[in-house]
Amino acid sequence: MSSLFKNLRIHQIFGANTDVGKTIFTTALVSASAARNHPVFYLKPVSTGPPQEADDGHIKRYAKSNLVHTDCLFRYDEPVSPHLAAKLKAREGNSIEIPSDRTIVNSIANRIRQYAGRHQQCAHVYMETAGGVHSPSLSGTSQADCYRPLFLPTVLIGDSKLGGISSTISSYESLLLRGYIVDAVLLFRDEYYRNWEYLEQYFAEKGIHISTVNAPPPRLPDVSADQASTQEYYDHLIKSASSGGINAVLDHLDQCHSKRIEELVSMPKRTLDTIWWPFVQHGLSKLEKDVTVIDSAYSDFFSVYKHKKNQDQSLLTPEFDGSASWWTQTVGHAHPSLTLAAARASGRYGHVMFPQATHLPALKLAERLVHNGPGKGWATRAFYSDNGSTGMEVAIKMALRAYCRRHDISEGDKKQLGVLGLNGSYHGDTIGAMDACAEGVYSCEWHEAKGFWFDPPSIGIANGRPGITLTPALSDLIGEKVIPAPSLSWIYDVESRLQTHLAESYYAYVQETLKRLENQGQKLGTLVLEPLVMGAGGMVFVDPLFQRIMVDVVRGRTENKQSSEWSGLPVIFDEVRTCPLSVTLASEPIFEAFLGDSKASALLHGHSYTAHAIGCEVANETLQIIDTLKAGQDWKDARAKWAQGESPKDVWSFWDPNFVQTISQLPVVDEVMALGCVLAIKLNSGSDTGYVSMSAQATFAPLQDHIADTSELSAAPGGAPFTTHYRTLGNVAYFMTSLNTCSSVVGSLEDKIWHVLSRA
Amino acid sequence: MSSLFKNLRIHQIFGANTDVGKTIFTTALVSASAARNHPVFYLKPVSTGPPQEADDGHIKRYAKSNLVHTDCLFRYDEPVSPHLAAKLKAREGNSIEIPSDRTIVNSIANRIRQYAGRHQQCAHVYMETAGGVHSPSLSGTSQADCYRPLFLPTVLIGDSKLGGISSTISSYESLLLRGYIVDAVLLFRDEYYRNWEYLEQYFAEKGIHISTVNAPPPRLPDVSADQASTQEYYDHLIKSASSGGINAVLDHLDQCHSKRIEELVSMPKRTLDTIWWPFVQHGLSKLEKDVTVIDSAYSDFFSVYKHKKNQDQSLLTPEFDGSASWWTQTVGHAHPSLTLAAARASGRYGHVMFPQATHLPALKLAERLVHNGPGKGWATRAFYSDNGSTGMEVAIKMALRAYCRRHDISEGDKKQLGVLGLNGSYHGDTIGAMDACAEGVYSCEWHEAKGFWFDPPSIGIANGRPGITLTPALSDLIGEKVIPAPSLSWIYDVESRLQTHLAESYYAYVQETLKRLENQGQKLGTLVLEPLVMGAGGMVFVDPLFQRIMVDVVRGRTENKQSSEWSGLPVIFDEVRTCPLSVTLASEPIFEAFLGDSKASALLHGHSYTAHAIGCEVANETLQIIDTLKAGQDWKDARAKWAQGESPKDVWSFWDPNFVQTISQLPVVDEVMALGCVLAIKLNSGSDTGYVSMSAQATFAPLQDHIADTSELSAAPGGAPFTTHYRTLGNVAYFMTSLNTCSSVVGSLEDKIWHVLSRA
Repeated sequence: MSSLFKNLRIHQIFGANTDVGKTIFTTALVSASAARNHPVFYLKPVSTGPPQEADDGHIKRYAKSNLVHTDCLFRYDEPVSPHLAAKLKAREGNSIEIPSDRTIVNSIANRIRQYAGRHQQCAHVYMETAGGVHSPSLSGTSQADCYRPLFLPTVLIGDSKLGGISSTISSYESLLLRGYIVDAVLLFRDEYYRNWEYLEQYFAEKGIHISTVNAPPPRLPDVSADQASTQEYYDHLIKSASSGGINAVLDHLDQCHSKRIEELVSMPKRTLDTIWWPFVQHGLSKLEKDVTVIDSAYSDFFSVYKHKKNQDQSLLTPEFDGSASWWTQTVGHAHPSLTLAAARASGRYGHVMFPQATHLPALKLAERLVHNGPGKGWATRAFYSDNGSTGMEVAIKMALRAYCRRHDISEGDKKQLGVLGLNGSYHGDTIGAMDACAEGVYSCEWHEAKGFWFDPPSIGIANGRPGITLTPALSDLIGEKVIPAPSLSWIYDVESRLQTHLAESYYAYVQETLKRLENQGQKLGTLVLEPLVMGAGGMVFVDPLFQRIMVDVVRGRTENKQSSEWSGLPVIFDEVRTCPLSVTLASEPIFEAFLGDSKASALLHGHSYTAHAIGCEVANETLQIIDTLKAGQDWKDARAKWAQGESPKDVWSFWDPNFVQTISQLPVVDEVMALGCVLAIKLNSGSDTGYVSMSAQATFAPLQDHIADTSELSAAPGGAPFTTHYRTLGNVAYFMTSLNTCSSVVGSLEDKIWHVLSRA
Repeated sequence: MSSLFKNLRIHQIFGANTDVGKTIFTTALVSASAARNHPVFYLKPVSTGPPQEADDGHIKRYAKSNLVHTDCLFRYDEPVSPHLAAKLKAREGNSIEIPSDRTIVNSIANRIRQYAGRHQQCAHVYMETAGGVHSPSLSGTSQADCYRPLFLPTVLIGDSKLGGISSTISSYESLLLRGYIVDAVLLFRDEYYRNWEYLEQYFAEKGIHISTVNAPPPRLPDVSADQASTQEYYDHLIKSASSGGINAVLDHLDQCHSKRIEELVSMPKRTLDTIWWPFVQHGLSKLEKDVTVIDSAYSDFFSVYKHKKNQDQSLLTPEFDGSASWWTQTVGHAHPSLTLAAARASGRYGHVMFPQATHLPALKLAERLVHNGPGKGWATRAFYSDNGSTGMEVAIKMALRAYCRRHDISEGDKKQLGVLGLNGSYHGDTIGAMDACAEGVYSCEWHEAKGFWFDPPSIGIANGRPGITLTPALSDLIGEKVIPAPSLSWIYDVESRLQTHLAESYYAYVQETLKRLENQGQKLGTLVLEPLVMGAGGMVFVDPLFQRIMVDVVRGRTENKQSSEWSGLPVIFDEVRTCPLSVTLASEPIFEAFLGDSKASALLHGHSYTAHAIGCEVANETLQIIDTLKAGQDWKDARAKWAQGESPKDVWSFWDPNFVQTISQLPVVDEVMALGCVLAIKLNSGSDTGYVSMSAQATFAPLQDHIADTSELSAAPGGAPFTTHYRTLGNVAYFMTSLNTCSSVVGSLEDKIWHVLSRA
């Protein structure tokens, strides 16, 4: 991830095309830095072409100061694009492996860390890329993508030739799509095409520094004459006091470097002064160190500012985003395909209103969700809103209306209808969604819990053994507290378990409770469930058999079936992990409950950004990426570890089953659960439990430091030691990967968690 | 706007750089189309360079079929970028004006419309651009931006030279940022650099067709030999049956054209089958013609699909977005700066979680809003959520908590607290936000109106005269129904009006009503107001004096002031027009009501996408654009029309004051109001009023057709006749411009509205 040192001013130099003067500008910058007595490190990650023409050779020849150090990490002789040069060399039978993006990035980051330790005074680093911004790196990934984890401040060398306005702006836009900070644009002052004239205005309007210098003199046939004339050119550039010249660039780059650091240093206090955070007690977070300053993010990692005492430590540290930013990062941060999808939709539509309208991104997403996604087999309609909470409010409005129509509920009784649900459930923070939950910590003055909530039996691995923990009421009925299970897969094979004794007991229990409620006058209008896991309620994995039986009972499935498609209560499944966009799927009878000839009976709920094209397009792209991941080797490998036999129904997780089993046996651990991306660890904290408990927060505090990075390079991109951002719910800590987290990162996290728990 | 004709397959041809073979590929495409007996129109919008070397000359020479027609719209001799060529010609003293983007776009669109009328069989149009995608057009705007209103399907000619992988991908990304549909990428098959090998895989993964052909033979010194060899090259290209060649491209472009039309044709039914719209009675919208198919959007216009019977009419029609897509389009659709801002933030952060964290886009936006925006002078804190409705729920939670703490309200009484507000108010669709409004049409089963709502006096222009319409209760008290006012500016000068007799009456009325409510046991916890206009309630502009006095009364300002910063009820102002993001600003005492040492007393409300970087960055960019617009000539001109004297306090609108006054005198119009972007027209509809009334919908129905486009070219980009998308609320229709709508578009809308109303 990003390297930022107080005493090391680093810039990567990208060209708007090949042959635009990248090496000439870099030589000028290197020489000018040295002339100001800064140690200078010139870094060429990949060099192609004959060694006598290599860029670092040019630097060595013309930037002769002993303050200048040059490095080239990977060198190939063929003067073609690096990916081809690497392929050709590999083909030669030298059995050379083509370096991966990870290797390249780690090598660069490592070299930069070495530079940082070498000098007391501020050194300058110039990393010169090859060709244009999207010229392929050795592996074939475009350089702009390959180097992105390093997130280095950028100088773009513009194109001064015919067509160069276009290539300069397009290159800038490609850098911008990767979020790069472009500190300066430099180009030759060609007086015929005058691109600088246009580009000066263009970049000035964007607040980006642009400088121009004269092009070098024409090449001379005599080598020593040519070298003398070139040297004179550089000498002149550096001595020139012209306002737009190289010295102005140097001043500007120095300023950019200090300003960036000053801004990061200022952000904690400014944030504490202005921001009101969600779900945070500001009375407990008053210090600058309580603020996580996120400078950028990439893949599963934030790049966060941490104050460092040593000059040779990076001010920016990789931090694993342990909650996938509240369950939102399905494929990691700043995925270029998702940025491009967002840009495409923004460029085509901006936002366009949705009622009585349609557009492709929304239509395609709806069709996919209804016909080939979670709605397959039952849903016919997609209703868009904008977050999980409003998606739930829409579902409640749908369900209550459908129930009232079906059962002919009087106006007076409508407001008395409650939901049936589970204790520990959470459906969002809007008051209507809160009213569908029992009174609890997420309350507010207007909260009125409407309904009845069962305590649910839950699933976990304790002391290495999976089991179902019963609630006291069920425990009394069944005579056991925990029912051991052969495997997690066995627990989730609900169809088979329907015939068990436990199923009978669940059934009797649910039915009797409902009868009792009916006798007490409790009216219910809908059943609301979170499938699989109640997150905010403490990462409780509910026994799926219990949920299934709740559904069966409220739908009256075992009683006489009516001819209609549904009976009893409508059921709402509240699922999260969405874009900043949500959708409520409904079956046709639910939709029909709102049909009529008066607008007043329509579903009068809508948000201005309903079905916004950008969100829909990103969702479509994400679903496509998931399809690819599903078929990929990483998922196969993870599944294989959890496989019990040949059953395709086996449940599995990205977390290693042996790790899960092992930590479940630690004395400090009460219970563990892993499913898919999620790892939830419930600690033995005595009576210190519940949402306001800080016990898990305290136990896992060492993760905020760099622990257990025993190998030289960590698993984070760039290999710097990484910290872990984690979220806790009382005595439960949970960790969440994305769907494409590297297995090496998961392994490293397991090491860190083990390190903490085994010492707790 | 976009032109799409059944019998006219149009493509614009962009180059990844200059000198990549654009003209050669275009010549091959033109020849191949003609060889298949399609009439072909070659269109060069701008040509620079010596006439004997012009691209259309090349086409004429080698694509000799009499089916081929060539056009060049603007021609300059200097072989430099078009913007420079135009400048040079203008400098020559020929007093030639440089054509504006609008002129260029209208000329192209007009030419295309002419082509469409000429043939029965399907004709092909190839529009060849100049240089690279971002090479400047005559005015200096980049071509990719300049031609965007036409939204033509695109062929990108890739760059086969060294560095060409990068320039091809960057150019593609610049096209994608404008939302263009790229149908194909074509490039020369250079066997040394082998860019095609890389790019074939790259574009195949994106689902974009790519074809390669051999480069033309080297130029021969003898002119006629060169022409013969070139002709042979073209003949070979067209006859070649190779799978990747020009004929495959032609097949593919044909398919793209038919698929696009088929998709548009299919969308209404597919939408009716899958989508559940917000705020729409599907029982009243069952026909395909009830669906507005939005193919793209630009500036203030949608480009919508309408079934056409005549082959020579475009299937896509510009439609003015008359509600600025539910008040969201501050500066029009698909503004390139906003797309770039979104892309920049997405590339840098993706989304990063916010609790206890910070990042620059969110921090800068919060600082701007608190210190230099709506919070200036009173707010200290910004709390982010994600839409107006949740922003309101946050405000309610804040206000109720602060009130309860300040006034030491018991647990039991908390749930009884209501809001004080205005009848007709609307704060969003979540149930909590609904509970802050009186029972009404936007109700649902769980809605329980909590509080008391005054009927408000309102403002409008009737029969040419501004006035304040009193409610029956106030009318009884004051003895008048309507109080005439010298001007709108006078009405909004609230400070001056505080001394009037009306102010005294308002004061007494509000205070007495509150006393009566208190005696009846009504508990109030907060005052909630929509500043200026109650939109969903029927575009009611409330008398600002009445709102001011409500605030003064509930804050107890005229009574003994306490030492604390606030007294009485906290006040919530509900303002809309935001990004898909919202923010609730609060003063420090409100913030302090949640401070403590327990998490349970914090504001436990949050959304996963709280303060998402993309929304914040777009908001920051929008605020910057607004700053520029504020200082610009268009706003000055609009203000000048409304100016009464030298008062900077004068209220004003983008709508012409004379137009507003004139339509207010029509018999069909009850009252009109214009302020800023908004024009609201209340019709004389007898008793047919209220939300479910369709009277305004019916009156303005002619706007769905092309009316009153009397001049040859309409004000829409491209000059095609345009329809108007409008929203109504019962007997009220409203129209909304963005902050940068051209005055010619506003004028044209005024003509259309006049046309409808004067005939109604």
